[in-house]
Amino acid sequence: MMKKLINKPEDYVKEMLSGIYKAHPNDLTCVGDDLHCLVSRHKHPNKVALATGGGSGHLPLFLGYVGEGMLDGCSVGDVFQSPSAEQMLAVTKEIDSGAGVLYIYGNYNGDIFNFDMAAEMADMEEDIRVESVVAGDDIASNISGELSDSSKRRGVAGIFFVYKAAGAAASEGMELDQVKKVAEKACANTRTMGIALSACIVPRVGKAGFAIGSDEIEVGMGIHGESGIRVEKLRNVDSIVDDMMSMLLADMPVGEGDEVALLVNGLGSTPLDELYIMINRIASILEEKKVKLFHTWSGEYATSMEMAGASISLCKVDSELKRLLGAQANTPFYKQFKIGE
Amino acid sequence: MMKKLINKPEDYVKEMLSGIYKAHPNDLTCVGDDLHCLVSRHKHPNKVALATGGGSGHLPLFLGYVGEGMLDGCSVGDVFQSPSAEQMLAVTKEIDSGAGVLYIYGNYNGDIFNFDMAAEMADMEEDIRVESVVAGDDIASNISGELSDSSKRRGVAGIFFVYKAAGAAASEGMELDQVKKVAEKACANTRTMGIALSACIVPRVGKAGFAIGSDEIEVGMGIHGESGIRVEKLRNVDSIVDDMMSMLLADMPVGEGDEVALLVNGLGSTPLDELYIMINRIASILEEKKVKLFHTWSGEYATSMEMAGASISLCKVDSELKRLLGAQANTPFYKQFKIGE
Repeated sequence: MMKKLINKPEDYVKEMLSGIYKAHPNDLTCVGDDLHCLVSRHKHPNKVALATGGGSGHLPLFLGYVGEGMLDGCSVGDVFQSPSAEQMLAVTKEIDSGAGVLYIYGNYNGDIFNFDMAAEMADMEEDIRVESVVAGDDIASNISGELSDSSKRRGVAGIFFVYKAAGAAASEGMELDQVKKVAEKACANTRTMGIALSACIVPRVGKAGFAIGSDEIEVGMGIHGESGIRVEKLRNVDSIVDDMMSMLLADMPVGEGDEVALLVNGLGSTPLDELYIMINRIASILEEKKVKLFHTWSGEYATSMEMAGASISLCKVDSELKRLLGAQANTPFYKQFKIGE
Repeated sequence: MMKKLINKPEDYVKEMLSGIYKAHPNDLTCVGDDLHCLVSRHKHPNKVALATGGGSGHLPLFLGYVGEGMLDGCSVGDVFQSPSAEQMLAVTKEIDSGAGVLYIYGNYNGDIFNFDMAAEMADMEEDIRVESVVAGDDIASNISGELSDSSKRRGVAGIFFVYKAAGAAASEGMELDQVKKVAEKACANTRTMGIALSACIVPRVGKAGFAIGSDEIEVGMGIHGESGIRVEKLRNVDSIVDDMMSMLLADMPVGEGDEVALLVNGLGSTPLDELYIMINRIASILEEKKVKLFHTWSGEYATSMEMAGASISLCKVDSELKRLLGAQANTPFYKQFKIGE
């Protein structure tokens, strides 16, 4: 049985969105009367505007990152469904202040198709310049023994680093091409590996998206339940983390003297305690390899509703990325004071 | 089977704490070599120091609220176990800057016993003045048809409002007696009601703390699995919220023109989406009653590891509480920019 605090499954997304607007009336509003098109109430003239979008069911991803120092707008579809090109266009028109719009979204076919169409309409019909960065950080979707191919990696929690860096760049006053370059650098420097311990239930479907044994974990599972690399027996988390870190560090050469940002993300029902037990091990591995830890982010950044599991994201940072990742941000869902100094 | 990302159950708390210090090295440290005694690295001369404590397994409660604008120190025990009086005393000595120390903790016998002993030792042996506020907000633990008795209410998520208000008061430079009065007012004005959909597993125990049917919810369950008021069949969440709000508003008379702060707290594995669906209904109920919503906090503030469920906390606010709840705060786990203006 589906055990969720909901009303009718078909009202799940509508009521969730309605609750968000009621909870954050001074910061967020929708475009026209379409709850799926969410924009910040704080518009800045001449600032490059940033938009994202994707399926619902991943809170705080995607719309939780709309706010000061991060994104300006977001469109979401039904659970795990892409929003339409028209919805993306509506957000684009609302947030553009003349400096152009950058789309940053995860590497999924439906999103690519709709965002590309929205960008074309914005250009042709509205004379708004739009650039796009497709974020792909999940190495599990492209494990091959060689370095993974970013165009084949799914977008998962590591997109947070891309939002954060590009959002800060836009707030600093960088132009569209520069903000795009920052986003591309953050993408290129970020890798994620996740594991799942349980499935989640899409409300309209009413049953778990996949089966997993009570003593099994799926290594490399996607945030919509896409198959991972392999199913393993559950064992000590230190040993699981060792494997995840080996795969990450093999795909993303960092060594002595390099510096990384770390994001340990819970997929939905994994307690914060367990994420810190993972961090305890990850920090030791990095220390042993003499890789410096710039900053650690932990908590739920990209979820699959009530899925149990966690992902590790590493972003190799230089002085520019440290400045941008460390800049202040203030959205209803994500707040950060300046890091460093 | 216990499906958790852990190593040996007996290392659960130690490794979790170790991860916290590694993740937040610039902000948090332990007293001596006892990981269970956590203090802020940012000490302010002449500021009243605030301490809390309680069992592990509730992150971000308790130690997540140690930081700027909130608490100065915290001691935690094993999962759901009180820390010792000696540990509380060690924290007390470390954080006192001569202006005295206020203990704010939840209404549980073990904590009361140990905090009282620590306060006595601090006074007798160290000449540190300690005052205490025992927070009790869970009306389910004292439903009687009459207004509930604060001395009989358990402390649950609503303690967040007490930490926030008292922390801001201390940061403003109020003296110990004034900070205590603020904490007492925040306590007196706060009520919480929760429901659970599933149990959690204490690692050392290895099995669920209680049984609940796949189509049942427990109304009024405590955050350690204490029995609630009744077991009900799961139904539409709007109807569940209506009942929770009726009980809250019956126990805490607020009416037309009054203003409240709202905290909708997830117990561990309930998705943020569901909390916003609850907020959608709560905001409508308050609007209908012409009770003004000062601000909405949502997310995981006091958990029971992977328990599914949620609680609603209301705090009736006046201009002083609005100023204090709205003040800036910055801990590794909780960040808030100034609210209002």
